[in-house]
Parts: sequence; C-alpha cells; structure tokens
Amino acid sequence: MQTVIDYIRSTKEAALKELLDYLKIPSISANPEYHPQCDQAANYLADKLKSIGMENVQLITGYGRPNVYADWLHAPGKPTILIYGHYDVQPPDPLEKWTTPPFEPTIRDDMIYARGSDDNKGQHWPWVRAIEAWLKTEKKLPVNIKFVAEGEEECGGKAIHDCMQEKKYIDAWKCDAAAISDGAWFAHDVPSIGVGLRGLSYFELEVNGAKMDLHSGQHGGTGPNPIKVLAQVIAKLNDVSGRVAIPGFYDDVQELTAAERKMIHDLPFDVDNYHTEIGVATTAGEEGYSHLERQWTRPTFEVHGIVGGYVAPGAKTVIPATATAKISFRLVPNQNPAKIKKQFEDFLKANMPKTVTWSLKELGEGGTALVVPTDSPYLKALQPVYEKIWGRSPMLTRTGGSIPVATLFANTWKIPVLFMDLGYHDDQIHSPNERYPLKQFYDGMELAAQALDAWSKI
Amino acid sequence: MQTVIDYIRSTKEAALKELLDYLKIPSISANPEYHPQCDQAANYLADKLKSIGMENVQLITGYGRPNVYADWLHAPGKPTILIYGHYDVQPPDPLEKWTTPPFEPTIRDDMIYARGSDDNKGQHWPWVRAIEAWLKTEKKLPVNIKFVAEGEEECGGKAIHDCMQEKKYIDAWKCDAAAISDGAWFAHDVPSIGVGLRGLSYFELEVNGAKMDLHSGQHGGTGPNPIKVLAQVIAKLNDVSGRVAIPGFYDDVQELTAAERKMIHDLPFDVDNYHTEIGVATTAGEEGYSHLERQWTRPTFEVHGIVGGYVAPGAKTVIPATATAKISFRLVPNQNPAKIKKQFEDFLKANMPKTVTWSLKELGEGGTALVVPTDSPYLKALQPVYEKIWGRSPMLTRTGGSIPVATLFANTWKIPVLFMDLGYHDDQIHSPNERYPLKQFYDGMELAAQALDAWSKI
Repeated sequence: MQTVIDYIRSTKEAALKELLDYLKIPSISANPEYHPQCDQAANYLADKLKSIGMENVQLITGYGRPNVYADWLHAPGKPTILIYGHYDVQPPDPLEKWTTPPFEPTIRDDMIYARGSDDNKGQHWPWVRAIEAWLKTEKKLPVNIKFVAEGEEECGGKAIHDCMQEKKYIDAWKCDAAAISDGAWFAHDVPSIGVGLRGLSYFELEVNGAKMDLHSGQHGGTGPNPIKVLAQVIAKLNDVSGRVAIPGFYDDVQELTAAERKMIHDLPFDVDNYHTEIGVATTAGEEGYSHLERQWTRPTFEVHGIVGGYVAPGAKTVIPATATAKISFRLVPNQNPAKIKKQFEDFLKANMPKTVTWSLKELGEGGTALVVPTDSPYLKALQPVYEKIWGRSPMLTRTGGSIPVATLFANTWKIPVLFMDLGYHDDQIHSPNERYPLKQFYDGMELAAQALDAWSKI
Repeated sequence: MQTVIDYIRSTKEAALKELLDYLKIPSISANPEYHPQCDQAANYLADKLKSIGMENVQLITGYGRPNVYADWLHAPGKPTILIYGHYDVQPPDPLEKWTTPPFEPTIRDDMIYARGSDDNKGQHWPWVRAIEAWLKTEKKLPVNIKFVAEGEEECGGKAIHDCMQEKKYIDAWKCDAAAISDGAWFAHDVPSIGVGLRGLSYFELEVNGAKMDLHSGQHGGTGPNPIKVLAQVIAKLNDVSGRVAIPGFYDDVQELTAAERKMIHDLPFDVDNYHTEIGVATTAGEEGYSHLERQWTRPTFEVHGIVGGYVAPGAKTVIPATATAKISFRLVPNQNPAKIKKQFEDFLKANMPKTVTWSLKELGEGGTALVVPTDSPYLKALQPVYEKIWGRSPMLTRTGGSIPVATLFANTWKIPVLFMDLGYHDDQIHSPNERYPLKQFYDGMELAAQALDAWSKI
C-alpha cells in the first residue's frame, strides 16, 4: 500500500497536468455546438483508462453523449466497485465574470480555477490516478472495478438513464457498491460522506377558467379566476405547521432514529450564518425538526415557477383564462413517487372548485430517495481511511437534493452508493470562477487508493 | 320637435356619409405613428361642430391628443348638458382577421363594419347630428350644450384627466348633467341606460425571499418560497363565501335597496347562456347575490397577473427569490380607494410571514364608484323618450367596469352622468370586424334630439 501512496505523491505534478489538459476541453453538454468537445473529453478519459491498464474500454454511443466504460475484473472473491463520474460541464456564462477564462485552467492560491475543476473532472480524476498507482506499482487492483462516466449529467442525464433501462448494461455494470465523488464537504474542515439524498416528483399544474381572457370590470365577481384558484390550492398544500397537507403524504415516511438525529444535531450548523448567507430574516419549514433535518430528511413541496395573466409593466384589467405552476415534492426514504402522484391527484380532485378545469403533467420521472445504511461494511471500511488522511472520522451527512443516477444504481442492484465528496461548498460550481483546491485533488487520490484497499478487506 | 325629427330622417344618408368619412380616419391614439391622424379626426369633428353653429370651438392642445370643445349657451334658465365622446380608436390588429379593411367602412346586412364604428365615433355622431337638426330647423337648442371629446380614451385618458385637474376647465366645462353614449345595451331588444359603475384600486404586490434563487434540493424545507407566500396571501383574500376577507372592507359598502335588487332581478339574464358564452361549467362569486348583482354592485378582488421563478418549458428545481402579482379591487358606492388601500396594507402587514419582505405599489389612481340616483329628473325625463322610440322603458343597468372620466365628471360637479349607450353587446369593439347597426345610428340621432327636448322641460 505504501508503494501505491508513494507513486501518487511522486507523480502528483503529472496528475495535475493531466487534469489541467482535461479541463481545457470545453465539454459543455447543454450546448450542441460543443458536442464535438464532449466527444473529445470522452476520448481523453477513455484513452487514459486504456493507457493505465483498464480493460474493455468503450465509448457507448447511440444514447446521446457517449458513456465511457472500462473495467478490471481480476480480483476473484473481492467486491466489485462501480466508480462513477461525469466528463461534461455546465455552460460557463456569464463569461465576463471570470477572472481567467473558464477553459484556460489557472492555479491561484493553491486553487485550480476552471469550469469543471470541481464539478466533476477534478473529483473523478483522483480515482483514475489511484487505479493507475495500483496497477503501476502492485500490477493489480485490490478489488474489481467498473468505471462508468457519463456526458449528460449537466443536461438531464438521459444517455446513462437509457442505458440503465437495458438488461445488457444492467448486467454489464452490476456491482457490489458504487462510489461517487461529486459533491461538497459539509465545511472546509469537516470531511464528510453523504449517506442519503431525497427523491423528487415534479409536476406542472395548469388551471383553466373561461375559454378566453375576461374583462375584470364586466366579469369580476362571477368569472372564475384561475390565478386565485391556483393560489388557493397552493396555499392548501401546506398546513400551519409547515407540513404537506396531502392526506397520506407522510404515511410511508421513514422517521429518523435517535442516533441519526444525534448525528445531524452534532454537525456544526450555524443558523445565523445561514440566514446571512441567503439574505433572510428567518427561515421557513416544518415544526419539530432542525434546519438540517428539514433540508435532508423531511419531505417538502416547493413551487418553482408560476405564471398567469398580464405580467408586463402597468395595469391591465384582465381575468386570465389560464394559470400554471411548476410544483415538486422532495421525497424521503420509503415514499413512493407513484403513490405520491396519486395522492396529489386525489388532493387536487378534492380541492379544485367546479368553476375551473385543470390538468396535471409529470415532468421527468419520479425518483425515490436514497439512504445508505450506516452499518454498511463499505461505509464502515472508510472510517479508518478518512482518519488516516484527514485525522478525523468522516461526518455522515445527507443532502436535500436528488441524484437520479445514484438512486438508479442503488435501486437496480440493491447496493450502497457512497458519496465520497471531495469539493468544498464554496467552490462556485455552476457559477463563474469555479475552483477546486489542489489539496483536495492530491488528498483525493490517496483517499481513492486507500478506499480500494479497505474494501478489499471486507 | 317634429321638424327636428323630420330633418334627421330626411338627411340620414348624409349623416351616414359623414360618419363613414370620419371612420376612414385611422385615429389610433395608442400608436404614435397615427397621431397626425388623431389630429385629423379632432379637426374633422371640430369643423363639423363649427359648421352646424356650435360656438367657441377649440382644439385644446398641450396635454396630449387634443380635447375638442364646443358650446352653445343661449338657453337661459335651461339646464346645461355636457355631451362626451372620444374620437380615438383601438389599434385594428390583427388585420388579417378583418373581412374588410378596418378603415374602409363597409355596410353589410345593415351593419357598419369599421374600427371605431361602435366605439365611439358611431355613438357620439348622433349627438352631433341632433344638435345640427335643432339648429337648422328651430335655430336654437332647447338646452345649453357643452360638447367635449377626447382623443386618448383608448390609451389611458391622460389628456382629459389633466384638463380636469385645472380650475380653468373645471369652470369652463361645468354642467348640470352629462350624457355619454359609449357602451352597449343589455341585449339587442333591451334598450338600457347605465346608472352605475364600479370604482377600481389596482396594485402590484412583490414578495421577496432569499437574495438569490435557491436550489430546491439544498434549501427545500428551510428557504422561504415567495410564490408559496404570495399564494397564501391571495388565498386569504377571499373567505369561503367568496367575500373579500380584508377587515373593514365592507364597512362603507352601500347595500342595494329592495327596489334596486328587484330592478336587477327583473332583467332577462340567462345564467346558462353566460356559462356557455365564457365556456365554464359554473361561475364564482359571493354568496347571497345574483350574477348581475355580483358583477355590477358588489366589490370584488381579482388577480390579473402573477409571475415568479422558472416558467419556461421543462423542470428546474429553483426556489425563486421573487414573486409578483397584479391585484385589483373593484369598488362600489361609498367605498373610498384611499381607505381600501390602507386596509389592504394592514392586511398584508398582518398576514405576511417574517420569512419574506414585500412591497406594494399602486398602479394608476384609485377611482371611486359611480351611481346615478334613479330618481334623478334627468333620468326620469328620458323614460318617455325611450318609450316613444323603442316602444319600451329603458332598463336601468349597471356595469362592473370603471369609466374614470365619467366618475371625474360626476364627482367634480356633483352631477348625474347618463350612460345612454347605443351599441350592441356583440359589436366586437376592440376586436376584428367591429361593427355598429345602422338602426342604432339612425335611432340614436332621434334619441339625442328628443333627449335635449325632454331635458329642457325639467
């Protein structure tokens, strides 16, 4: 193991140079003009995987941007770990806000400034280098590895989702656990592993009143107003304690154990800082739960957008024919998106007045929440690794967001997905001047190398 | 009197030709490119008024499109009547939906098809011709007349509003009653006189949460959602019986008398037809009042527009920083816009949660409601005139809309304003193929001529 670490330390400048070259490729998946560059990034990754001794290296095309696959399966009796990353990046706009150009990576104050430096090239490259270090020094890996990278994470994830619907890939990518480094530590000095994320059900609700816009002088008092109806329905969706008021909504919600609540309670969360950070006097939410519990472990509903009637400057006295809202529910373990959808529809049927008609359209596929059991041996094996590298046990955190591909992995093979995040929360991903600490990149390689070793001993 | 009527009947073709020439002028006040044509229409009207013997004919410029003024004040001891009209028209778009061009007036099936034919050239020209008939045959008018026409009715009415703020015009235009033909009969076979309209207070309400849009995964459950807050406030503005739920809102509302309720109840209103016309299964509104009572005599609140967050196609998981709604209250007699504004602000202060900030902006000036006392002698004098011309008493109707200039006349001089509408409700004003029945034009001239006579006998 020490030779592996020595290799990593002695070649870290080469590793950095490789990463910087990777970062120079503007693999912006959302913009079709940059699809050739997406292919270029996929090839760069595939070529590297091949050069270090990974086998069956493929670019899986035909589903959108290529999925990169490679494996090394010569550790009989040992676990098979799927390593996931994505080579595509967010659009860099607004360009004028970047201190240095987004695709000319620059080191300043021990930070790599470039689009994709944190999200996600700089977080999966340590895994590539860790595999290299093992194969160069020990001539083998301590576990079986399947490496999967997608190129549409930043624009919907369709290509990998479509592969995961096919038996061919379900069989080919089958694994005992998955490791994903694609998030942020809880704080700079708090190494953390994600052990849960929420699911999501997303809907568009349209309410229709009269067949045309009505004059509010002539019809005000009798003409049905879809904005008012939509507002009334949205208002009814929360009760006064901040809970979702759909009957049955909490039936399947897995409550936290005392140990889980304590784990969250022990995290260093400063409510005042949070208020300052987002610029509010106080926050909203469900009674009886702390901030982090609300964000990570409780289901919620949000309205993401609403529009209806006259919204240009000035006054127009119209009762609009239509109003529309985008509404989602974040789901927690045991909640079933199909059941939630049915409950929501029933709620609408019960609460919509006869003055209007309405339609509910689901946007995207409902995704379930994901929780990694804290007694998973794959998770427990990581504890001494974190202690060795960073001098402390990892905090086990959750996130309120949703990572559909992780949930898909977990549900498809009934495996633990380990969110071994390496970013800092202030790395400005998706924003101008995205950055990634050199230290996290270097430490990340050692984490990856040692994690493979630790899992081999389960 | 009979000679006046004979004159009207014998010159009706000339009257029609004049109107058609007037309709050829595209006096579209909303479009600055057509302001020369607005001036042209003002001059056409002024020249006509001068040619028939009206005095002090002026184009009052400097406030926007000219106000046309003329008078004839040689009936000592007789009332002074202000006749109002507007020479400007709505834009004709969409042009391709017109069967014949909007400014090439065409007669089909005894209808005049042209922009402005009903609204309002064809409704005030009868008054011009009635004055002409009196002056040509009797060499005098039975009452004193002040004729005022504006050219910005279709784009905000600023020019006449500004004149009405000046003592000079308040004195010059002072009158005992005003007659306005600028609306529609209750039904084709129901000649009607408007005796009331509602007031209006119009607001823009903005709700602000966090200082930036938040990711709903990360912040859902704690981050304040301005759309939800705005929806909750809108929902609270109505109680379950459909009343406005602002404390004190109904304090000053003048309830209908039994006679007024009976008058409205007796009107031939078909609820099923109304549902079909606007395309709804059933209508909304305040319990305990009929449809027409709700539309004409009860205060309401409406939301005219709402917008916040992500409204483009697809799903975006954002908690927006801001949401905005345009909200108005239609007011009825005795309600004071300033008091309503204060009550609304107090309501918002009491109901907005501390999670958000908000601002309320008034759009336009609050306008009070207007009701003509049904025992006004000016109104009573019209009854036999309507009977003579149409064989039945006029229905006394109200409208739920607001006509600020009428309210201004009524409040400035404490006078009755008589809405002697001549249009049909299906004349498609503001729409393609606006039309106006020849019969209404011809009968309108006789109505105007006889009304002047009737008022002279008060």
